[in-house]
Amino acid sequence: MKQEHTVKMDGRKTIELTGVQQVERFDSSEFLLQTVMGKLKVKGSGLKMKHFDTVNKKAAIEGRISSFLYVESSTGMSLFRRSK
Amino acid sequence: MKQEHTVKMDGRKTIELTGVQQVERFDSSEFLLQTVMGKLKVKGSGLKMKHFDTVNKKAAIEGRISSFLYVESSTGMSLFRRSK
Repeated sequence: MKQEHTVKMDGRKTIELTGVQQVERFDSSEFLLQTVMGKLKVKGSGLKMKHFDTVNKKAAIEGRISSFLYVESSTGMSLFRRSK
Repeated sequence: MKQEHTVKMDGRKTIELTGVQQVERFDSSEFLLQTVMGKLKVKGSGLKMKHFDTVNKKAAIEGRISSFLYVESSTGMSLFRRSK
């Protein structure tokens, strides 16, 4: 199964995302999304959820975008490492 | 004249941008772009310039993307503020 993840931003006003597994939390200044390629933090002001669809893994956010940041799960790697 | 600015990212591997006026500097871990909607910093690793076209204001970057950040010109506002 293909695990696509795309981000399309138009004019710092809208973002459309694919490959979104979950919206972990959000408020008007920050969204935390679980994507197929890691956690993504979107920061801005006046942010609103336009839509979110778990079946198609799509989400859209509206507002004034100031940054996107992938939160690397460096701790996750060590947790899932097994000693044999 | 329309001042469009769009960002399209595919799988954290490629970014295509419109509304890019200038590439101010770049290396393998950071690009600084002047766009029609402010300065944009793109961070990651193994970043490469795929293309840049001043006429159409388009740019494309390849590599492992970790973040995008619009650098707000807050100092600019106070500098241009006039006392009457």
